[in-house]
Amino acid sequence: TGVATMKFRSPPVNSLSLDFLTEFCISLEKLENDRACRGVILTSAIPKIFSSGLDITEMCGKSMEHYAEFWRAVQEMWLRLYGSNMVTVAAVNGSSPAGGCLIALLCDYRIMVENPKFSIGLNEAQLGIVAPFWFKDIFVNVVGHRVAERSLQLGSLHPTPEAHRIGLVDELVPEDKLQEKAAAVMAQWLALPDHARQLTKSMMRKAALDRLVAHREEDIQNFISLISKESIQKSLRMYMEMLKKKKS
Amino acid sequence: TGVATMKFRSPPVNSLSLDFLTEFCISLEKLENDRACRGVILTSAIPKIFSSGLDITEMCGKSMEHYAEFWRAVQEMWLRLYGSNMVTVAAVNGSSPAGGCLIALLCDYRIMVENPKFSIGLNEAQLGIVAPFWFKDIFVNVVGHRVAERSLQLGSLHPTPEAHRIGLVDELVPEDKLQEKAAAVMAQWLALPDHARQLTKSMMRKAALDRLVAHREEDIQNFISLISKESIQKSLRMYMEMLKKKKS
Amino acid sequence: TGVATMKFRSPPVNSLSLDFLTEFCISLEKLENDRACRGVILTSAIPKIFSSGLDITEMCGKSMEHYAEFWRAVQEMWLRLYGSNMVTVAAVNGSSPAGGCLIALLCDYRIMVENPKFSIGLNEAQLGIVAPFWFKDIFVNVVGHRVAERSLQLGSLHPTPEAHRIGLVDELVPEDKLQEKAAAVMAQWLALPDHARQLTKSMMRKAALDRLVAHREEDIQNFISLISKESIQKSLRMYMEMLKKKKS
Repeated sequence: TGVATMKFRSPPVNSLSLDFLTEFCISLEKLENDRACRGVILTSAIPKIFSSGLDITEMCGKSMEHYAEFWRAVQEMWLRLYGSNMVTVAAVNGSSPAGGCLIALLCDYRIMVENPKFSIGLNEAQLGIVAPFWFKDIFVNVVGHRVAERSLQLGSLHPTPEAHRIGLVDELVPEDKLQEKAAAVMAQWLALPDHARQLTKSMMRKAALDRLVAHREEDIQNFISLISKESIQKSLRMYMEMLKKKKS
Repeated sequence: TGVATMKFRSPPVNSLSLDFLTEFCISLEKLENDRACRGVILTSAIPKIFSSGLDITEMCGKSMEHYAEFWRAVQEMWLRLYGSNMVTVAAVNGSSPAGGCLIALLCDYRIMVENPKFSIGLNEAQLGIVAPFWFKDIFVNVVGHRVAERSLQLGSLHPTPEAHRIGLVDELVPEDKLQEKAAAVMAQWLALPDHARQLTKSMMRKAALDRLVAHREEDIQNFISLISKESIQKSLRMYMEMLKKKKS
Repeated sequence: TGVATMKFRSPPVNSLSLDFLTEFCISLEKLENDRACRGVILTSAIPKIFSSGLDITEMCGKSMEHYAEFWRAVQEMWLRLYGSNMVTVAAVNGSSPAGGCLIALLCDYRIMVENPKFSIGLNEAQLGIVAPFWFKDIFVNVVGHRVAERSLQLGSLHPTPEAHRIGLVDELVPEDKLQEKAAAVMAQWLALPDHARQLTKSMMRKAALDRLVAHREEDIQNFISLISKESIQKSLRMYMEMLKKKKS
């Protein structure tokens, strides 16, 4: 059918570690270069979580070199997914904070399972860190400036009905209808001639893509200088402690 | 009353041919220079169709010079209508695909007849061609980035209730109330002092206007190189065949 | 609690005179430099009016130097409030035309008293004058391009339900719940770590702030040349006469 499915399977919560990001980019590039593949559905193989976002252990107590390598991998994932020639559909079957929300935002279409326990949003501010401008740019593209300004400042995790109301996800479905719905949406998008659809997509996304490419190195330096602050390191350590206690 | 009405009457479907565009610009310029005229209502004299958009015969099997002349005329119409000092109201009394939708987007206000058979949208992608950036810029201005990205990639023709819901048209009315409503809206806009309204309009539209002016020649070259591709010519010919069969 | 309240008390209608603006900036700067103060609620001590906007007497029959000094003070207020590191909540307890609406737009969150007699909007065009680009930029940030284009051209004063529907205010409350609601919203925003919230806010607002800073002197010259036109002076005098008659 020309449609691939990428299922995230990195227990316990699909954190975006350096390994995960590297493998993600390799897989995506293979599909991108496979002329038989015209679309990809992104979903999770782990119940209740789509992706928990950037792996905090990669940002805590590591070397400057490691921070730079990690951040470059996040940028690379962003550039490849936002600039993909394929139709990209996020089938969000669980909670999707921070980098998890980012993956959904980078796709062409977002379908989420309706579940009162699931939420989605760029909640970086709650951790004492700041979403970079390229997270912000595509968030504004999806939900508009006013909603983005409030949501980013509050670090909001939106429950599914609210996520749908503000346009952060395009559609809500019951869990058992997710794959069927994703396939139907994909078929609708693949009915268009590839060439015209790809040129249109690239026209819509060019400004944001160009902006990250132009400021990539500067953004890495900003990240390193922010993340290596002792106050930030401390709040990340506290956050990890909290997560550990929650688990046990 | 200071209000003119321009009724499109170019059977069978008000295609935007080179002749149509040239006459449109001349008529608009006359009104623009007539100090007694402060507003113009654009509507169709042909039942069920506002305008079917760019005339495909102008883009098929013609010389490079012809393509350039035609595209420049489309740009000219865009520049004059979007930059008009008059109040411009689109009274959309029929279907309005592609360039027909563009004419409505260029106005200050869009009223459409509520009819389950009518639709409106920039459906270029369905024909295998791509709406240029200046179609996209004003579409984003009207419906926002997220809706525009999806609608342009899918080449969507929106039924009237959906067109209203996404903000592509400002108001829906029954057919027999259209002229009355257009006149009432016009009166509301003309109640403002011209000078302040015109400066405000030009402030809102300056960025998009400047952008086309700055890239006009480059955009003509892009159009020529896209339209003269054999694959595009073939899909336009197929589309014309389909239209002919539909008619007979 | 770390929260200050600024109550506008400049009878009869909280006009933004040169004195008002100067005092406003001094008060805001004091709070900004007070490390114990993390948020400020802006509201009115005068019943039924939040602020009537720029003081027209400052723009009528004065010297060029006075116009320049006045306009620079309006810009200064804009720059300080939009760029404030504090959480800023507008508790709009009365009508809020023109510059009054601007103050609300500059805050992080807008709560308005639900009252059929109150309205809010940038109605400059109705007075024959034009909101400058920096009013427009933040209006577009809040309500989007399409709504802003129409509202600014028509000089609309939106009744409270409409203001809420278009996103110009975030929430409507009964008069007796306003302070309680403002305090609750403030508490929600102050729950975030200051540093991350401030960096996020400044990322969202940087483009608009930079734009006014870059064009500040040019904008003052534009204002002077517009406001000193005899036609504008005449319409401002007529407007002031009308206000006087209305009062008596």
